[in-house]
Amino acid sequence: MYENETFSNESTSGYQTAVALKDGWYVLCSSEELGSQPIRRFLHGEPLVLFRDSHGQPGVLLDRCPHRNVPLSRGRIRGGDLECAYHGWRFDKQGRCREIPCLQRDSSDAEDKLRAAPCFQSCEKDGYIWAYAAIDTKPDHEPPKLAYTQDSDYSVLRTHRTMECSIHAAVENALDVPHTRFVHGGLFRSGSRRMVEVIVRRWYDRVEAEYVGESCPKGLLGRLIAPGGGVVRHFDRFILPCIAQVEYILGASTHLVATVAFTPRADFRTSMFGTVALRTRLSQLPWPLNQSNCVLGNVLKPLGLAILNQDRDILYAQRENIHQFKSEEYCSTELDTLGCAALQLLRSAANGKLNPDMEPRTQRFRMHA
Amino acid sequence: MYENETFSNESTSGYQTAVALKDGWYVLCSSEELGSQPIRRFLHGEPLVLFRDSHGQPGVLLDRCPHRNVPLSRGRIRGGDLECAYHGWRFDKQGRCREIPCLQRDSSDAEDKLRAAPCFQSCEKDGYIWAYAAIDTKPDHEPPKLAYTQDSDYSVLRTHRTMECSIHAAVENALDVPHTRFVHGGLFRSGSRRMVEVIVRRWYDRVEAEYVGESCPKGLLGRLIAPGGGVVRHFDRFILPCIAQVEYILGASTHLVATVAFTPRADFRTSMFGTVALRTRLSQLPWPLNQSNCVLGNVLKPLGLAILNQDRDILYAQRENIHQFKSEEYCSTELDTLGCAALQLLRSAANGKLNPDMEPRTQRFRMHA
Amino acid sequence: MYENETFSNESTSGYQTAVALKDGWYVLCSSEELGSQPIRRFLHGEPLVLFRDSHGQPGVLLDRCPHRNVPLSRGRIRGGDLECAYHGWRFDKQGRCREIPCLQRDSSDAEDKLRAAPCFQSCEKDGYIWAYAAIDTKPDHEPPKLAYTQDSDYSVLRTHRTMECSIHAAVENALDVPHTRFVHGGLFRSGSRRMVEVIVRRWYDRVEAEYVGESCPKGLLGRLIAPGGGVVRHFDRFILPCIAQVEYILGASTHLVATVAFTPRADFRTSMFGTVALRTRLSQLPWPLNQSNCVLGNVLKPLGLAILNQDRDILYAQRENIHQFKSEEYCSTELDTLGCAALQLLRSAANGKLNPDMEPRTQRFRMHA
Repeated sequence: MYENETFSNESTSGYQTAVALKDGWYVLCSSEELGSQPIRRFLHGEPLVLFRDSHGQPGVLLDRCPHRNVPLSRGRIRGGDLECAYHGWRFDKQGRCREIPCLQRDSSDAEDKLRAAPCFQSCEKDGYIWAYAAIDTKPDHEPPKLAYTQDSDYSVLRTHRTMECSIHAAVENALDVPHTRFVHGGLFRSGSRRMVEVIVRRWYDRVEAEYVGESCPKGLLGRLIAPGGGVVRHFDRFILPCIAQVEYILGASTHLVATVAFTPRADFRTSMFGTVALRTRLSQLPWPLNQSNCVLGNVLKPLGLAILNQDRDILYAQRENIHQFKSEEYCSTELDTLGCAALQLLRSAANGKLNPDMEPRTQRFRMHA
Repeated sequence: MYENETFSNESTSGYQTAVALKDGWYVLCSSEELGSQPIRRFLHGEPLVLFRDSHGQPGVLLDRCPHRNVPLSRGRIRGGDLECAYHGWRFDKQGRCREIPCLQRDSSDAEDKLRAAPCFQSCEKDGYIWAYAAIDTKPDHEPPKLAYTQDSDYSVLRTHRTMECSIHAAVENALDVPHTRFVHGGLFRSGSRRMVEVIVRRWYDRVEAEYVGESCPKGLLGRLIAPGGGVVRHFDRFILPCIAQVEYILGASTHLVATVAFTPRADFRTSMFGTVALRTRLSQLPWPLNQSNCVLGNVLKPLGLAILNQDRDILYAQRENIHQFKSEEYCSTELDTLGCAALQLLRSAANGKLNPDMEPRTQRFRMHA
Repeated sequence: MYENETFSNESTSGYQTAVALKDGWYVLCSSEELGSQPIRRFLHGEPLVLFRDSHGQPGVLLDRCPHRNVPLSRGRIRGGDLECAYHGWRFDKQGRCREIPCLQRDSSDAEDKLRAAPCFQSCEKDGYIWAYAAIDTKPDHEPPKLAYTQDSDYSVLRTHRTMECSIHAAVENALDVPHTRFVHGGLFRSGSRRMVEVIVRRWYDRVEAEYVGESCPKGLLGRLIAPGGGVVRHFDRFILPCIAQVEYILGASTHLVATVAFTPRADFRTSMFGTVALRTRLSQLPWPLNQSNCVLGNVLKPLGLAILNQDRDILYAQRENIHQFKSEEYCSTELDTLGCAALQLLRSAANGKLNPDMEPRTQRFRMHA
């Protein structure tokens, strides 16, 4: 039942668990954050400059002018191109240098190549600006779809914030059950516990835990989204390279899917872009009775933000201690299966060892929840 | 008379003189600082968590939960055990993991070992919480006794503060005579100087300097503790691993012993826990005339604190310059005998080269004091 | 015409372009900054202490007491010598230790050598305190003369400030033409541009660019110093190890020479000590009509300070990005000839590869200016 391979005990020095996975799409900012001025955002420790061309299409370049190292994000948009603030060199969305002021001659192809700014593929989707993390690379796939965010039966809530921890620690925290009673106290889970069976399913690029026999979430949050209580279907998922998802199904009518896209700003700084899609019995009523939105915005949102603040604080404490000790120690049990599996997936992907032909695998264990 | 072996000139790069001696008891905090909540204190650059079990006995563990690196000092006490703030793992005074919430099975011995928090032997003595600096080690000796602090003939004053310097620099400063005229000006020594003979006695684990022919301390301090003047016996001592002591005997009745326990918080941060025990002619009078305490608290204390502040400032300047140069230079004379001997003792001890069978040795030199 | 050797494209990691040239005189501070108290100033990352002896002559020592590492700049002057604040050791202008308080015996020559503070040759000239950067070395040449600062036909303005960048980046910025339109906008150059020929002349220890066919400087600054407009002679120069110079000649009467002595405080911190010498038609009129001074102080000075602030800001942005990327990328064109040549000179000098017998060389290129 409880298989030893599902987690590992490890002791590291030098912060080995921070995994920088380049083969993937990440959210850099929300659509509204990118206006008519260039902005700087970090990915994997490197500053990128984001801007919109004259058609409003996003462009993402390494935020350093190839001429004299100045951040391009200090510049301005001229005719859809990005003009450096120091000597006025201009770059288009692909990073090509289109003008060097004062220079009186045409450039050779070799010079054009040297003068280009490294470029990241980008697109705008589901309300976010996404970039593909490998430099000057055209990916063979699109950014993931954020479940139910475009479905009119669902009310959708968005939030984002940046936390001082590795992407692995953030994913593990988002999908972890036991910590909720200690970190979130009465806000989330509390009260009597029962034995729950956990079915862990692994695919080559994702892992899912299903909790069977769980009672309806306790605490304020539980009472609000499922006032009647009853048995619940609950899934936690991690999908490479950066998606964590929590799904609750309560009876036929209530469905909550929280999807978080995590962005590794640096080894120990991670942004989370979260969407919560909620359908309740209210959603099916005609206006003005379909007040899922109202529940979501006025009740779930403040609760959710309080929970995020508590998680941010404990993750910060964890990160500070890792820096203090200049090493990390992990001693895991089956309760940590999902976090350990997510880290294994990130490492396998970073090492180019994902196998799409892998047979899905299933394990089970039991826990008090 | 003046022997060359007593001091050395040395130039280092990389801060070699910071000595981390693990084989010894150090004060972590005063008894009053440790209440019903766990607290964090540093020793040799590592954070430790201190707490009291249900009997009030102190426990000291490495301040990192073996599960997910969170500081245990963020947790709380439950039934005398220390509960981690993240997932609620509980540890007793010996560092044993006593509970993992949600886990539905018993642990194996191997698991128990992995899940234990590294432990430091600790005890409460003379008003302080002491810890033995070697991890998971049972020492063969007790913490040192702080002289006269429990003797009812003596009035006792305590103070502690943290200084930004190596333990060696702090010890040297505490036992150094020549600096007092420059750093402490009129507060301490001043006025005419005379030739004094210094007898240095060395044992395998300590060194002592006796000043023969010294006149009564000048300045405000001297006039207060020895209004009659006269010849004085004055000893300065360093005792491994962390005790500096200054003793003045003036005639039959006045006796002042200042004992400092130094704690190396990190290579260049040192706490000092100081006790001053004073017996004067007043001490032998019946109440309400035995006002040693009053002299100590109202006159000596503010003077002593001013002196400590001046020393802290000059030691900080010294430390900042060592960091600025990323190296240390030492050019010593016989006046630095005690500081050099203390450093030699610390280094010998750290290298396991103390020899308890060593014959005591004596040297002499003369100085203007 | 355009020769490829005049500049290079390079990519570094580890900040290779910060060149620490020890064989040269640098300004440490202005004469007024050094009064009766010792002061600390940095050169090449090392703190130096500056003081005046009893004749007012400057002395410059490494700012660390050889006894216990304390900054000598915390001390005070006693009889023309510098007394350390910790134990009172005294040093003269040559760094010799003249007294050790409390020590009752004379010192040997070997001891004198160990106890000396490393010394830098220094002098006071043209209103500045200069030091030769190689430790304990007597240079075979004097500090450079700052052009026209002692000529009564010229009005002279001085300013100094510290910028967060390498000396190379500061020199390049001071001598660069194309950035003025982008960084300084309307304050400096603007308006229509014309084709200008640039003649670059190189000697073994300096490089000069002459701009032929340039119209009178545009913008406020141009209109003030050359209200009549007309053709201008304009030279930009770099002279090893630290002098940048901009010279404008407008007709027979107007002559402006801005000379900057740069001081590398650290790899990425550079002070500039600037003098502007101006002779205009007004200078030749009798008092009170010879108001060059007034133009210089009331009009040019605020404009110049605004320009310096803009340069300081863009250089800071450049430096921050170099630190962010932990590397530097340079992709140059012929417009960067002077900056690239200055860096080559600094590197050749640092590697001991200057050849005084080198034949002067001339190159030409054209630019829009």
